[in-house]
Amino acid sequence: MPIDLRSDTVTLPTQKMRDAMRDAEVGDDVYGEDPTIQQLERLAAEMVGKEAALFVTSGTQGNQVAVLSHTQRGDEIILEENSHIFYYETAGISTIAGVQARTIKGVNGQMPVPDIVAAIREDDVHCPRTALICLENTHADSGGRILPLHYMEEVYQVSRKHDIPVHLDGARLCNAAIGLGVDLKEITTYTDSVQFCLSKGLSAPMGSILAGSKELIERARKWRKMLGGGTRQAGIVGAAGIVALEEMIDRLKDDHRHAKKLAEGLARIAGIDIDANGVESNIMMFSVAGLGMGAGEFIKRLNKLDVLANRLGPYRIRFVTHRGITSEDIDRTIEVVKQIAGSNHSS
Amino acid sequence: MPIDLRSDTVTLPTQKMRDAMRDAEVGDDVYGEDPTIQQLERLAAEMVGKEAALFVTSGTQGNQVAVLSHTQRGDEIILEENSHIFYYETAGISTIAGVQARTIKGVNGQMPVPDIVAAIREDDVHCPRTALICLENTHADSGGRILPLHYMEEVYQVSRKHDIPVHLDGARLCNAAIGLGVDLKEITTYTDSVQFCLSKGLSAPMGSILAGSKELIERARKWRKMLGGGTRQAGIVGAAGIVALEEMIDRLKDDHRHAKKLAEGLARIAGIDIDANGVESNIMMFSVAGLGMGAGEFIKRLNKLDVLANRLGPYRIRFVTHRGITSEDIDRTIEVVKQIAGSNHSS
Amino acid sequence: MPIDLRSDTVTLPTQKMRDAMRDAEVGDDVYGEDPTIQQLERLAAEMVGKEAALFVTSGTQGNQVAVLSHTQRGDEIILEENSHIFYYETAGISTIAGVQARTIKGVNGQMPVPDIVAAIREDDVHCPRTALICLENTHADSGGRILPLHYMEEVYQVSRKHDIPVHLDGARLCNAAIGLGVDLKEITTYTDSVQFCLSKGLSAPMGSILAGSKELIERARKWRKMLGGGTRQAGIVGAAGIVALEEMIDRLKDDHRHAKKLAEGLARIAGIDIDANGVESNIMMFSVAGLGMGAGEFIKRLNKLDVLANRLGPYRIRFVTHRGITSEDIDRTIEVVKQIAGSNHSS
Amino acid sequence: MPIDLRSDTVTLPTQKMRDAMRDAEVGDDVYGEDPTIQQLERLAAEMVGKEAALFVTSGTQGNQVAVLSHTQRGDEIILEENSHIFYYETAGISTIAGVQARTIKGVNGQMPVPDIVAAIREDDVHCPRTALICLENTHADSGGRILPLHYMEEVYQVSRKHDIPVHLDGARLCNAAIGLGVDLKEITTYTDSVQFCLSKGLSAPMGSILAGSKELIERARKWRKMLGGGTRQAGIVGAAGIVALEEMIDRLKDDHRHAKKLAEGLARIAGIDIDANGVESNIMMFSVAGLGMGAGEFIKRLNKLDVLANRLGPYRIRFVTHRGITSEDIDRTIEVVKQIAGSNHSS
Repeated sequence: MPIDLRSDTVTLPTQKMRDAMRDAEVGDDVYGEDPTIQQLERLAAEMVGKEAALFVTSGTQGNQVAVLSHTQRGDEIILEENSHIFYYETAGISTIAGVQARTIKGVNGQMPVPDIVAAIREDDVHCPRTALICLENTHADSGGRILPLHYMEEVYQVSRKHDIPVHLDGARLCNAAIGLGVDLKEITTYTDSVQFCLSKGLSAPMGSILAGSKELIERARKWRKMLGGGTRQAGIVGAAGIVALEEMIDRLKDDHRHAKKLAEGLARIAGIDIDANGVESNIMMFSVAGLGMGAGEFIKRLNKLDVLANRLGPYRIRFVTHRGITSEDIDRTIEVVKQIAGSNHSS
Repeated sequence: MPIDLRSDTVTLPTQKMRDAMRDAEVGDDVYGEDPTIQQLERLAAEMVGKEAALFVTSGTQGNQVAVLSHTQRGDEIILEENSHIFYYETAGISTIAGVQARTIKGVNGQMPVPDIVAAIREDDVHCPRTALICLENTHADSGGRILPLHYMEEVYQVSRKHDIPVHLDGARLCNAAIGLGVDLKEITTYTDSVQFCLSKGLSAPMGSILAGSKELIERARKWRKMLGGGTRQAGIVGAAGIVALEEMIDRLKDDHRHAKKLAEGLARIAGIDIDANGVESNIMMFSVAGLGMGAGEFIKRLNKLDVLANRLGPYRIRFVTHRGITSEDIDRTIEVVKQIAGSNHSS
Repeated sequence: MPIDLRSDTVTLPTQKMRDAMRDAEVGDDVYGEDPTIQQLERLAAEMVGKEAALFVTSGTQGNQVAVLSHTQRGDEIILEENSHIFYYETAGISTIAGVQARTIKGVNGQMPVPDIVAAIREDDVHCPRTALICLENTHADSGGRILPLHYMEEVYQVSRKHDIPVHLDGARLCNAAIGLGVDLKEITTYTDSVQFCLSKGLSAPMGSILAGSKELIERARKWRKMLGGGTRQAGIVGAAGIVALEEMIDRLKDDHRHAKKLAEGLARIAGIDIDANGVESNIMMFSVAGLGMGAGEFIKRLNKLDVLANRLGPYRIRFVTHRGITSEDIDRTIEVVKQIAGSNHSS
Repeated sequence: MPIDLRSDTVTLPTQKMRDAMRDAEVGDDVYGEDPTIQQLERLAAEMVGKEAALFVTSGTQGNQVAVLSHTQRGDEIILEENSHIFYYETAGISTIAGVQARTIKGVNGQMPVPDIVAAIREDDVHCPRTALICLENTHADSGGRILPLHYMEEVYQVSRKHDIPVHLDGARLCNAAIGLGVDLKEITTYTDSVQFCLSKGLSAPMGSILAGSKELIERARKWRKMLGGGTRQAGIVGAAGIVALEEMIDRLKDDHRHAKKLAEGLARIAGIDIDANGVESNIMMFSVAGLGMGAGEFIKRLNKLDVLANRLGPYRIRFVTHRGITSEDIDRTIEVVKQIAGSNHSS
C-alpha cells in the first residue's frame, strides 16, 4: 500500500461506518421518509447552529445548490480566485445558475475586505446585482489555511451592511474548527449558509451537508432534485455521515499534527521551499523548483518510492494528511523526499 | 406496516445488498479508483450492449447528464408530453442544458412516429436545431406501458435518417425487458444512450446507470461532476447495484404478476375504471370518478385502511407493485378498494 | 417588382417616416435622454393602457425580455404549440431565461382554457413553477386568427385566480384591434404585459414596444441591455414608430379587406383548400395538396409569375397582405393561382 | 448646450447620415434582402480583413453574439478584469452563453501574457475548457489605452499555440487604428473575430459590426436572432453606418488632439491627478482626491458650470472627447476645472 498524500478524499469508511450502513434504518428520502437522513440532517443543523440542513451527494453539489438558492440568473457572486467553487466546479455557477463570477485574489484564502466592498456593484443598468459572497474555510488552494474568526466576522458585517448573504464552502469546516479550537457554530454564525463534507477527513464514503434557514433549505431541496441529488434510501450512506459527525471530528487533530511534522521535516530539506508555519490544518503546498526539477518529475520519483501526491502547477506539490496516514508514514515520507532531493543534487 | 403502493422507489435494500455494502472494496471514484464502481460500470455496459457506463446518483441525474452530453445550448429535444424528463425533472433540461422541450402527445407512451418526423426542425435562422429524441420505456405516466421493440426500431430508423441521437429513459428498463421477455440489450440496441435505475424495482438504495459510447460517457463524466454527482467511495452503494443487476431483475416477474392480478381485481369493482389489459408491467392507473369521489378522498380512505397510493390528477390513482408487496397484500388491497367502493355507494 | 405576399415584414417605411427619421430630435437613450423615444414610449404605453413602455429592436426581443422579466430560471411557461415565442425564437426562452416551455395545442390560436388550467403545476419538488401564460393575438400560425375579447378575458380570469401573469405577443396587435373594431387597450386590459410591433403592417423599418407596469418595465430595461437592445440615438427609428402608431393603424383595414378578397378568390379555385371564413386579418393559409403538387413546387411556379409566398409545411402556403399590396395585386394573384391550378390539371 | 464629456455615445448623427438614412434603399434584412446592410457588411468585412460581417444593434450585442458563437455552455473565457464584456454587460456571458468569466488584471488594458498562459485550463474533469480570449482595444476603463500591435500579436501567438480563438471588443477600434496610425486590419489580423461600433466616435445613431470567418458569422446570425437583433429594414440605420465607415474615421484625430490638450491642461491644475502621457485616444481618467472632494461633488460642480462627466469610483472622473466637443470646449473645460479647484482650495 503506497502512502497516499494526494487528498483526504481517499479516506476509507471505518468499520463502524460500514456496520452502521449495513444496519441503517432507511426509507424513501424523496418522500422525506428516511429516518436516518432525518437524524443526520437534524444533527448537522444543530452542530452548525442553523435551522435546517440538507444531505447532498457531494461538496460540489452542496455549493451549486447554495448558489442556486441564493441567487437569480443575471446576478454576480464574489469568490476568491482560487476557491473551489470558482476553480474546480466545472463552471457550474455560470452554466447552471447563470451567475457571473467576480473573483478576488486572496491572501491565505482571505479576500481583502476592502476589495470585497469595492466589488459590490452599484445599481446600474449595465451591471449585474451582487447577490452572494462566498468564503472557503479551510481554504484548500492556499494550503489549507484557516480563515480566522475575526475575518469571518468582518466579512459578515460587510454582508449585513450591503444586504448580501454569505455562503461558506466548508468542505473542510471541521478542520477549521479543530484548528481554531472552537465549535463549528462559532465559525458558521458568520454565514447564511454552509456546506461541509462528511467524506474527506471525516471518512464517510460520500455526502455533504448544506445548512441554512428553513426557507433556504426548502428552496435548496428543489434545486437538489434538479441536479439529480434527490436519492431514495439515502440513509445507508447517511448512517456513515452520523458516525462521521459524532466520532470523527476530534481525530482530525492527528492529521493536523502529522501535517505539521511533515512540513517541518520538509522545511529542513535543501531545495524544498515550504512555509511550515503556514501549515494550519491537514494540507501543505511546497515548491520543488529549488531541486531543479519539475513537479511532474518529482511526483514520478515519489511514486517509485511508494508515495503519492498531486501537483498544482509546474513546480508546486500538495501533500494532504488524513486518517490513512500514520506517524510512521510521515517519517517515511520525509526520508523519501530527502532521498529524491539528495539523489538530485548528486546528479 | 401499511401496504405501500405509491412507488417502487420505496423498496428497501435486501440483506445481501446490505452485506455487500458493508464489505465492499472501495476507492476514490473521482480518481477512477473504486474497484466496485468499475465492476458495476463494466457489468452494466455489457448488459445493455454499450461501450461504456457511468454510475450516477439518480435517474434524474442520468437523464440530465445525457441531455447535456448530447446537446448544445439553443437546441431542441423531442419528448413525450408526460415523460419523466419533461414532467418531473424540475425544468432541468432548460435551466441546466439550455435546450427547449418539444413535446408530443403519446399513446401508451408512444409518440406517433409521423409526429416525431414532423417535429424535426428545418435548418432556419428562426428555429433551434433538433438535437435529441427521448423515449421512456417503460413509460411511467401511461401506467407502465412497454414500448414494443418494433416501435423502438422504427424511431431509431427515423433517428438514423435525420442524424439525431436517441436517448432512452429506462428508469424501469428491466421491467420492460421482463415484460417483453428479452435481454436488456435487445431494447437498448435501438438507442444511443440509456439510463436505467438500480433502485426502484431492483431495490438498490440509490443509483442509476448511464450507458453509451466511450466518447459520450467521457463527456458525461464531466457533466456529472458539474451536477455534483462525482462521489468518492461510491462503491459502497455500487455494491448494492451489482447485486441488483445480478439477482434482482428476474424477480420483477412477481411484481408484474401481482400488478396484473391487482388490476383484474380492481376491474371487477363497480365504479373503478381501469384497463386491466393495459397493465404490462408493475404500474397501473385507474379512475375513481365512477365512485363519485375525488382522488384525494379515495386516498384518504385507503390510508385509513393502511394502503398507500399516489394520485395523478383529480380522479386518477396510481398503484405500483414492487418487492415489498406480497400476494397477500394484493388480495388485501382488492378487499380494501371493494370496501371503499361499497361504503361509498351505500352513502 | 414582384407581388410579395411572404410577410408584412417586407413593408417599406413611408415617405413621412423617412422624413421624420431624418429630422428626429435624438439623444442617448441608454442615458434615458432621447426625446423621441420618450415620446414614443409614452404614446405607446397610453395606447395600450399600461403604466410604462420600452422600445425594443424587434418583436422577438420584446418577447424574450418579457419572459426574462416575468420569470426566474427553473420556471415553466405556458404557450400555444405553434406560437411565435415557442416556434420561431430559436429556443431563446430556454437558453436565455432558463425556463421550460409547456405547450398546448390551440384551435385558431386559442389554447382551450381547461387545458391551461390543467397545465398549471402543483407545488411539488419534482415540478417547475408555472410562471407565465403567453397568448398571441393575432395568432400568426393559425392564419392570423384573432383571439376574441371574451377568450382573452377568460384566460385573464384564470391567471388572476392562479396568480400567474399573462404576456401577450401582440406582434400584430393592431391587426387584432382593427379586426375586432376596438381600441388596443380593450384587448390589452386582459394582459400584464404586451409586445407589439411598429414594423410589420405598420411599416416602420424596425422596432417593437414592450408595455406593462412601471416595475416590470424597469426590470425589462436591464434585460434589454443584456440582449444588446440598449441603443443610443434610437429616436431615429423611434420617429418612424411614432408615425406608425399615429397614422398607420387605421389603414390595416385595407390589408384585411384585401386578404378577404384574396381568400375568397382562392376558395373558388379547384384544388386550393382554404377556409375563407377563417381569414380574419391579413394572413391566410391554404393547402395545395389538392393540386397534386407540393408547396415547394407551387411556390416555384408562383415565383416565375412574379408572386412571392412562404411555405409552412409540405403542402401549406401562406399569403400575407400589407401596405405594399394593392387591390390590383390581389386580382393578379388570383389569376396567377388559377393559371397554376389550371395548367396543373391539364398536365 | 452643456459641454458633454460623459461619453462619445452621445454623438448625434451628421446631416449626411440623416440624409442617407432618409434615402436609403432597404429590404427585409431577416430575409437577407436589405441592399444597404449588404453593402455595409461587405465594406466592414473588407476594412477589417475578415471574410464576413454582421450588423448588430449594439456593441454589447456584438460581443454577446461573439461569445455565443465561439463557445459552448460550460466553457470558460479569459477577459481583462475591467473589460466591458465582463464589467458592463449585465453578466450576459454567464446568463446567456453559460460560460464562466476568468478575469485577469491588466496594465493599461493589457493582460500580462504569462498570466493568460497560466489561466488556460488543463484538461481535467473538475475544470471548464478555456474557449476564448477576449481583448479590448482601445481599452475604455484604463482611460482609452491602445493595445500595441506587438501585444496583439503576442496574445495571438499564444492563442494559436493553445488553439483558442481571440475575440476583440473593438468598440473603439477606429480610435485604436487612428492612434496607432495604421489600417484597421493591421490590428484585426491578430483576431478571430472583432466587434466595432458605428456609433460612439463615428457618430452613427446605433449599430455595430461583428466580423470574422464566414462560418462564424453564419452561426452568429442565428444567435443574433435569438437575442432579438434580427431587424427588418435595418438599412435605414445601416446607411448611417456606411457614412460612418467612409467618412468619420479620419476625424477621430481631432478627438484625440482635443483629449491630449485637455489632459495636459488638467495636469497643470493643482489637486488633479492625471497621467497626461497615458492619454492615447479620446478618453482620460483622473482623480480629484487631491482636491479634497469626492467625484460626486466634483461632478455636481461641473454640472453647475455646464460641463457633464461620468464618475468611475469615489474619486475618479472620466472625460471623453468626441465630435460634439470643440477646441473652445476644451479651453472652457480647463477653465471650469481650474475654477472648481481654486474655489475649493480657498474654502
